[in-house]
Amino acid sequence: MLFFVNDYGQGAHEEVLKRLVQTNLEPLPGYGGDRYCESAKEKIRAACEAPEAEIFFLTGGTQTNAVVIDGLLRSYQGVVSADTGHIAVHEAGAIEYTGHKILPLPHREGKISAKQIKDYLKTFYQDGNYEHMVFPGMVYLSHPTEYGTLYTKQELSEISAVCREYDIPLYLDGARLGYGLVSPGTDVTLPVIARYCDAFYIGGTKVGALCGEAVVFPKKAPDRFLTITKQHGAMLAKGRLLGIQFDTLFSDRLYWRISEQAIDMAQRMTGVFEEKQYSFYLKSPTNQQFIILENRQMERLAQQVSFSVWEKLDENHTTVRFVTSWATRPEEIEELRQIL
Amino acid sequence: MLFFVNDYGQGAHEEVLKRLVQTNLEPLPGYGGDRYCESAKEKIRAACEAPEAEIFFLTGGTQTNAVVIDGLLRSYQGVVSADTGHIAVHEAGAIEYTGHKILPLPHREGKISAKQIKDYLKTFYQDGNYEHMVFPGMVYLSHPTEYGTLYTKQELSEISAVCREYDIPLYLDGARLGYGLVSPGTDVTLPVIARYCDAFYIGGTKVGALCGEAVVFPKKAPDRFLTITKQHGAMLAKGRLLGIQFDTLFSDRLYWRISEQAIDMAQRMTGVFEEKQYSFYLKSPTNQQFIILENRQMERLAQQVSFSVWEKLDENHTTVRFVTSWATRPEEIEELRQIL
Amino acid sequence: MLFFVNDYGQGAHEEVLKRLVQTNLEPLPGYGGDRYCESAKEKIRAACEAPEAEIFFLTGGTQTNAVVIDGLLRSYQGVVSADTGHIAVHEAGAIEYTGHKILPLPHREGKISAKQIKDYLKTFYQDGNYEHMVFPGMVYLSHPTEYGTLYTKQELSEISAVCREYDIPLYLDGARLGYGLVSPGTDVTLPVIARYCDAFYIGGTKVGALCGEAVVFPKKAPDRFLTITKQHGAMLAKGRLLGIQFDTLFSDRLYWRISEQAIDMAQRMTGVFEEKQYSFYLKSPTNQQFIILENRQMERLAQQVSFSVWEKLDENHTTVRFVTSWATRPEEIEELRQIL
Amino acid sequence: MLFFVNDYGQGAHEEVLKRLVQTNLEPLPGYGGDRYCESAKEKIRAACEAPEAEIFFLTGGTQTNAVVIDGLLRSYQGVVSADTGHIAVHEAGAIEYTGHKILPLPHREGKISAKQIKDYLKTFYQDGNYEHMVFPGMVYLSHPTEYGTLYTKQELSEISAVCREYDIPLYLDGARLGYGLVSPGTDVTLPVIARYCDAFYIGGTKVGALCGEAVVFPKKAPDRFLTITKQHGAMLAKGRLLGIQFDTLFSDRLYWRISEQAIDMAQRMTGVFEEKQYSFYLKSPTNQQFIILENRQMERLAQQVSFSVWEKLDENHTTVRFVTSWATRPEEIEELRQIL
Repeated sequence: MLFFVNDYGQGAHEEVLKRLVQTNLEPLPGYGGDRYCESAKEKIRAACEAPEAEIFFLTGGTQTNAVVIDGLLRSYQGVVSADTGHIAVHEAGAIEYTGHKILPLPHREGKISAKQIKDYLKTFYQDGNYEHMVFPGMVYLSHPTEYGTLYTKQELSEISAVCREYDIPLYLDGARLGYGLVSPGTDVTLPVIARYCDAFYIGGTKVGALCGEAVVFPKKAPDRFLTITKQHGAMLAKGRLLGIQFDTLFSDRLYWRISEQAIDMAQRMTGVFEEKQYSFYLKSPTNQQFIILENRQMERLAQQVSFSVWEKLDENHTTVRFVTSWATRPEEIEELRQIL
Repeated sequence: MLFFVNDYGQGAHEEVLKRLVQTNLEPLPGYGGDRYCESAKEKIRAACEAPEAEIFFLTGGTQTNAVVIDGLLRSYQGVVSADTGHIAVHEAGAIEYTGHKILPLPHREGKISAKQIKDYLKTFYQDGNYEHMVFPGMVYLSHPTEYGTLYTKQELSEISAVCREYDIPLYLDGARLGYGLVSPGTDVTLPVIARYCDAFYIGGTKVGALCGEAVVFPKKAPDRFLTITKQHGAMLAKGRLLGIQFDTLFSDRLYWRISEQAIDMAQRMTGVFEEKQYSFYLKSPTNQQFIILENRQMERLAQQVSFSVWEKLDENHTTVRFVTSWATRPEEIEELRQIL
Repeated sequence: MLFFVNDYGQGAHEEVLKRLVQTNLEPLPGYGGDRYCESAKEKIRAACEAPEAEIFFLTGGTQTNAVVIDGLLRSYQGVVSADTGHIAVHEAGAIEYTGHKILPLPHREGKISAKQIKDYLKTFYQDGNYEHMVFPGMVYLSHPTEYGTLYTKQELSEISAVCREYDIPLYLDGARLGYGLVSPGTDVTLPVIARYCDAFYIGGTKVGALCGEAVVFPKKAPDRFLTITKQHGAMLAKGRLLGIQFDTLFSDRLYWRISEQAIDMAQRMTGVFEEKQYSFYLKSPTNQQFIILENRQMERLAQQVSFSVWEKLDENHTTVRFVTSWATRPEEIEELRQIL
Repeated sequence: MLFFVNDYGQGAHEEVLKRLVQTNLEPLPGYGGDRYCESAKEKIRAACEAPEAEIFFLTGGTQTNAVVIDGLLRSYQGVVSADTGHIAVHEAGAIEYTGHKILPLPHREGKISAKQIKDYLKTFYQDGNYEHMVFPGMVYLSHPTEYGTLYTKQELSEISAVCREYDIPLYLDGARLGYGLVSPGTDVTLPVIARYCDAFYIGGTKVGALCGEAVVFPKKAPDRFLTITKQHGAMLAKGRLLGIQFDTLFSDRLYWRISEQAIDMAQRMTGVFEEKQYSFYLKSPTNQQFIILENRQMERLAQQVSFSVWEKLDENHTTVRFVTSWATRPEEIEELRQIL
């Protein structure tokens, strides 16, 4: 069965796994105090051109969002997000569990704009009752978004300017960041993100690691962020597991090579869908593609290919998602062509 | 430098790692829905002689304690624990973060007794103001304790009886459970624990896994516990990472073999300390040993051996902790003998 | 200056205050254990025709909503509400502070329908990922709504049926309940509410009390609800303050008489606005009326009458709110007529 | 039946109630924005000699403690308290509900010392694992304590110095503050408290108000403290209820006169117990007195006098508490003498 369900269906990229094997018996300090964590942080700082950045390794996306957002906000503040943001929909209320409201703005292909954010902030402070409402305390973006779309450098710069005007941090969820960084035509690089954001994470789980996300605070982490991660149950005793993986991902451009492979496969796959004249719900510049299928066609296809059902479009049609990753091989695309 | 700092200084036991490598490219469903998780659960149920048990895999001990305790308690309840319990001291307030008070009882070598618990419960309900106080809603034990000591089957049975009398669950933190199970002279087995406890976890991180703890509810899990783990940021996208490890640990008695190796080394190590006439703060039946060192002696020793400083005993003496694990080799014990 | 800002601008209705004075020196047990609380509960049970009802007195609306919702929900559940619901907008995130997400549905004149709720619940459980989302754990209605509108008995009955089908409680925020009960043409009485809802509160603060809301669980309160109120800081030492007030409000139909006075004044006021050909944003059957004013007209009026600015309608128009209460006198309506 | 159960058994002091009646029909802005709140704050600032103080009115002690402590702490911090502190024992876990651990120190007659606090802080930061523990983020004192005892100016000054050395706020729970301020021999005045503490509250509920506590931040309140109170359900719509009461309590020394009456009665009562040769568990300088009774004697006495059972002392003896208030009359003391 062909696998296009998601980008976390396999284990780790082979180089990552090899490195875990090689270092396995070396005794190391716990809780992230080991030399591999240190080395990974140094490489990430260099890649971000952010020599002062404070970096922390956590295990998964929902955890990272909850710990970072709770770490950045005061109790009376909430987080502004697209209504399709992962935190607003698919994290089982992990943000609300930390006591904070998500303040949703209507998305456009998964994105929100500087203008929307500014209007929201302005309207909030003009409301005579704003002291009885949840203060917008930060902005959350996902890049790539849940629809695989990307912000431009110009858009990030504008959103960042609004945040700085209102003195609230900008946080970027990079669960699939690698795929965004190597997308053809993007002008958003790690240093660009580090310049415009106050916090972001570089996703590992969906980009070749067994698990792990690298949280970057380009300027300064919240006070005692290490203790905050522990308090949230987000600190591994064997911090090495994360340090070694990120040290490998940031050696020899592996993070980029992994992502390029996925994007290459995604473009070929898109070509196949176009060639076979399938309708796109949305043509994304990254590794997630959203196709509209007639329901019977969907059922037929599901017998040979695995993919995700995204949402019912109407009585007879459904939007489905096809995802590539570092583990997708050209032969699989060819096989998909045969089937379609 | 000899390493006796803890039992999580190395990566994973070689068989665990080998299995991760072998299965790495197999595409699998996410979030613990894969066949390795299923197989691991089946093996754990068999080992516990608890065919109805509901089992969940989480990544670390603090996380597991927070999620299980919060899952078992209602908001107005707290958890009874030894004052030396890990949750009471070294988890950065992770339990309180979930809104629950820890109700500490004075420990004796890390343990609390059925009598203490019963007295506490009885006194509580006799207090005319108990509705203004935190209800004792469950009991937390660690086994082995933070001092390496063990409960007997009789003790567990008595504590369990008190809990059932008051209709509150008994939860056992088994971060180092393997070392307890194979300790010479113990009569506490997995089926015994499954019979007397309402929840417990089988520690992986400190017993040969890269990360991971297996939570067992012998009878029934709290409603929607899967969603509760997600809400706490405790669910891995690549649940396989935990399933494959526990499936391996519970094949061919690996979990027991790992633990036996550590206990064997601990006994040899204890022999060395006895032979050299060192003072024991506490002689434990498991893999943690607490030695009293004169401070200058401690500094000298620290140049060749790494261990943990436990606590200052008086002006001139300090209690230190030496720990063995599956990775401790006989040669290291021999080398330690030379140094002492 | 004429006062139409809200229905909590004065102290307590004179009969309420008188009773507080009369009973002032009588020594009484604390924390709501006094005979006035008991008597008030008995009268409320009778008025609700709910002889088994459990009743608690809290001090204010936001507090009541937070304590009741947190008491009814499990951690993984959220509360379905109109997007204009008070809890969703003007309570400073008090619900999220307790860890629960508000699941908003688009309102229609402040109301949501059984169909909307059923569609939401159905869609939720059809979503393959529902275990990764916040479970809809209860439904919140306000009656009268934030727009002064009312549900009909038929509507409540239908919403209740949906809730029972999905086994989730229905909760009704009655901050201004009195005004709803006496509104001409309504068929919703206290016994109707007690039959269809699993929890509701009878608002005192906005209906003649100094402070206080009476929470009614017609069948059964959440376990240890008294302790839950204490834990939320919602229990008064001098519980008598609330018991005496509600005992008075439920003697000699005072709660109804107070409300009738406000509705009578509201109808006269509406007549004046109609006579003077003002535009209504929404003509409500209760004591809140929403008028559209041209901005300069609004500024002029504000010099002689105080009212609330509701929201900007367009560049030149604003919706404003005029509210009557038990303290509004016919002379004030006459004076308003002169001014308009 | 003579009433010595507590100091909140009656309603409000007559002058307080009279003022509520007088101002009842005056329309006022809600949520504490009225002129009586403003006037009360001005008088409290003057009485504290703290012209910059920020002041907030809340309804009860548990609520106040929870809101202030949560407002002052970051998530990773806990509050140092005597193990007999009200927050540690009788507030149903309200502090833990806000996510914060209480760090208990052993009390001496309800008090803790600067030395104890300093030792705790020093030991904490010397612990190699302190990042895995709950940070001591503030100190909580009650004055008078739960045993009716008082700190001296010297003691407060020393504790304050330790707090400032470690840069953590000192918070004083003044639920019964009035009785402390007028206790014969005390050198602790409101200006002394305002100088040494970063936050404290002036208790109203137990000192003559119907309800209400005045929180004072002598220098600066936590950011957006008003919204924090709302979020905690601690803001009254009719804020006037609290403002008018405190405005009255701080007019013509009423707060002191009320307290003096209680202390006068307490001294007479103590005299009676001494005269009758009763044993004191603890002779307090304020309005709570702790007497040791033989159990049969206690039962006999309970038929004519109401008091609180404090705790079982041994098989045959019980400590009981007798409390006076502004409502205790000389005749009642005389009657008590007859009975004893």
